[in-house]
Amino acid sequence: MTRSPPAPFARLSRDVLVENRWHRYCRDRYVQRDGSEGDYYYIDMPGSCGAIPLFDDGTTLLVKVKRYLLGCELWEFPIGGMQIGDDPRAVAARELEEEAGWRARDFHYLGKFAPYKGVSNEVCHFFLAQELVEVGQSLEASEAIEAHRLQLAAARERLLEQPLGDGQSISALVLLDRFLAQRRC
Amino acid sequence: MTRSPPAPFARLSRDVLVENRWHRYCRDRYVQRDGSEGDYYYIDMPGSCGAIPLFDDGTTLLVKVKRYLLGCELWEFPIGGMQIGDDPRAVAARELEEEAGWRARDFHYLGKFAPYKGVSNEVCHFFLAQELVEVGQSLEASEAIEAHRLQLAAARERLLEQPLGDGQSISALVLLDRFLAQRRC
Repeated sequence: MTRSPPAPFARLSRDVLVENRWHRYCRDRYVQRDGSEGDYYYIDMPGSCGAIPLFDDGTTLLVKVKRYLLGCELWEFPIGGMQIGDDPRAVAARELEEEAGWRARDFHYLGKFAPYKGVSNEVCHFFLAQELVEVGQSLEASEAIEAHRLQLAAARERLLEQPLGDGQSISALVLLDRFLAQRRC
Repeated sequence: MTRSPPAPFARLSRDVLVENRWHRYCRDRYVQRDGSEGDYYYIDMPGSCGAIPLFDDGTTLLVKVKRYLLGCELWEFPIGGMQIGDDPRAVAARELEEEAGWRARDFHYLGKFAPYKGVSNEVCHFFLAQELVEVGQSLEASEAIEAHRLQLAAARERLLEQPLGDGQSISALVLLDRFLAQRRC
């Protein structure tokens, strides 16, 4: 009997090179398209969840976040990482409370996307958050975040016209637009 | 004389934990918002460049890419990583040729965004590519990529309606829409 060779893109082994409280950095040996073996280095991460708050008066909230890696502030929707077993909606709710300072009673799932498909297995989930009550921010020592309330049209402009855009928030806007268009139908 | 403490978000040191042909994985010691020291683990990456081809008949090209980390195929615009010193436009042109099999004579810069602001310092640049000539794909052993030509409206739907979206391509669509709206004015 001969064993058939592993299929392309099958994992042969995994080494966790670094593990920290935010993610794991791994190297897999895997089968490439042509059957040869290759190394794949990547971030292993359960996922992330973001919230787009929408108030009855048509305003939303953006956070202005000091981003260490990019050396600048970015305008963003609130977002944060998941741990294994987390419920996406609960994570979106927590991040909205901690980063923006608002608690929502009503969540609607907008969709998901892979923000960094080549180097991370993270899937990012976004929710529309409504029926909002102010509870105040609760930031970690690593976070410098300001929350700003503004009309949705102004938020869209701010997200798109900043010198460096935040890809996750821009993608989330598209998910929101799809939802709002379907609701109008 | 007393030395003033380092400003929040100043880097204190950098350790390159892993270096490979695609990126570096680093750990910085840095000053957190409240003045305490923290660790920041991240992907260090010169950047990436993508191209949105647009033909005179209103069609574009998407690539269907087998994504090892996500265990599925994604519909995407052609994109690839930069090395230090690379010209973004040249990288976009190369990726369009290698992944999609088309050479463009005319490029227009659409904008940039940070696809994964929390864990990577990568900045992603996107270009509109026009005046296209077919040259044929040229794939690496690690790549399984099909190129498909379709109307821009159909490409938009395919990017947004797939089970898992590609955040970078969705963000690129928004940059394209902004450019097309400005050109119509």
